[in-house]
Amino acid sequence: MEFVSRLINASRRNRSLLCVGLDPDPSKLPVKDIFEFNKAIIDATADLVCCYKPNLAFYEALGIRGLQALKKTVNYIPRDIPVIGDAKRGDIGNTAAAYAKALFGYYKFDAVTVNPYMGYDSVKPFLDYRDKGIFVVCRTSNSSASDFQDLVDNFGMKFYQTVALRAGDWNKGGNVGLVVGATCPEELKEIRKLCPGMPLLIPGIGAQGGDLELSVRYGVDAAKEMAIIVAARQVLYASKGPDYAQAARKAAGELRDAINRYRGM
Amino acid sequence: MEFVSRLINASRRNRSLLCVGLDPDPSKLPVKDIFEFNKAIIDATADLVCCYKPNLAFYEALGIRGLQALKKTVNYIPRDIPVIGDAKRGDIGNTAAAYAKALFGYYKFDAVTVNPYMGYDSVKPFLDYRDKGIFVVCRTSNSSASDFQDLVDNFGMKFYQTVALRAGDWNKGGNVGLVVGATCPEELKEIRKLCPGMPLLIPGIGAQGGDLELSVRYGVDAAKEMAIIVAARQVLYASKGPDYAQAARKAAGELRDAINRYRGM
Repeated sequence: MEFVSRLINASRRNRSLLCVGLDPDPSKLPVKDIFEFNKAIIDATADLVCCYKPNLAFYEALGIRGLQALKKTVNYIPRDIPVIGDAKRGDIGNTAAAYAKALFGYYKFDAVTVNPYMGYDSVKPFLDYRDKGIFVVCRTSNSSASDFQDLVDNFGMKFYQTVALRAGDWNKGGNVGLVVGATCPEELKEIRKLCPGMPLLIPGIGAQGGDLELSVRYGVDAAKEMAIIVAARQVLYASKGPDYAQAARKAAGELRDAINRYRGM
Repeated sequence: MEFVSRLINASRRNRSLLCVGLDPDPSKLPVKDIFEFNKAIIDATADLVCCYKPNLAFYEALGIRGLQALKKTVNYIPRDIPVIGDAKRGDIGNTAAAYAKALFGYYKFDAVTVNPYMGYDSVKPFLDYRDKGIFVVCRTSNSSASDFQDLVDNFGMKFYQTVALRAGDWNKGGNVGLVVGATCPEELKEIRKLCPGMPLLIPGIGAQGGDLELSVRYGVDAAKEMAIIVAARQVLYASKGPDYAQAARKAAGELRDAINRYRGM
């Protein structure tokens, strides 16, 4: 089944637009083993989320053992919950094909994030996996996002708007989405207008200071779906004690319910 | 010692601007074991290059065993030859810090490539490693590079030019370079003018069709140094037979000599 259908199925079943970011930081973990930590978080939240999103950086930072934990984690997540590999890769064609092979073939992610800087042929090897989701990084949540993404071209378009429109062109197979930060609600609103039907992956609430209510209101499509609200630190580290999994469940449940209130569901 | 000094030392010692890209493709390898292949290539070319550049995609595509081979490869390269980890990472601050930890702390690369799309704070965690080199992806060698990199802003600057100038601003520590494709010599010429003193990493000759002579002439600095000409496939797969290492040495030697002729040295 294709990614968007799988996402919507999980989202409706769990009545949730929440995505838990599985970004283990050893300095904050209440247990030593990363896979054990992720497993407890997944067990505690699997009925509260529409998908999970491990960011590869946190696993790569731990070397081979981190990547072994990542592979076990993806494998452990119930098959009816999609998993987005947040890797933001971008390179020329034959190299992008190797990254796609790593992310889809080896780790078995259902979707990935990609960087648009190198243009269409750097994204195409990912798009060719028609049953997978491809989230193109568009307007990000960090404060330097404006350095380049807000540059205005000679037609009056901002760079991130051009990226959004081009990603729309690339969406022939219905498998393309966009990454838009929760810290820039006006840009989110605009991107939703430019791409009314595409899934939007929205990180940046919580530790990064994004506005949850505006992210939900501006991020959802006409059916009040297709926005994926990411929370990592505020769920994973809700408690640093032995009750971390219950605390994560409580934080995730509250976020899910708040999101549902904001979308009127 | 800082990266640029190490690069210049290796370059002068070997009289070379050639960088061999260690991008093993299992479908083309004459031997089964990737590390064994890399080791033979390194043994055959270590006196002919200024640095090596493994692209992480090719190792990630093979899963854990690929990354084990990568780690062994970096470790095997003689310490007086710098190693550039071509990973093109880019993400928000705390995530970029995790990528920097992976690339510099775990794999021990001497330099990396980074993607500029997310702006200064996504590059800063790499810049903070003052003795490492940071090559900012600027104008790439693929044909879709023009999709976004050539967009003209309302001051008449192309996007890649803005990236080059900003990367120049980020070069307070003298550890920043740029990635510029060999397939766009006019852009290379211009970038060298904008950033006269920065090292330029130039992929795209050989299989990608870039012009070697123009890449050298336009890429070098005033002292005819600081251009890094990358060759991967045409060296690695110069022969698919048991003589692959000798063939790689011959191909690398010819390239080095051609580069030296073009720079008049």
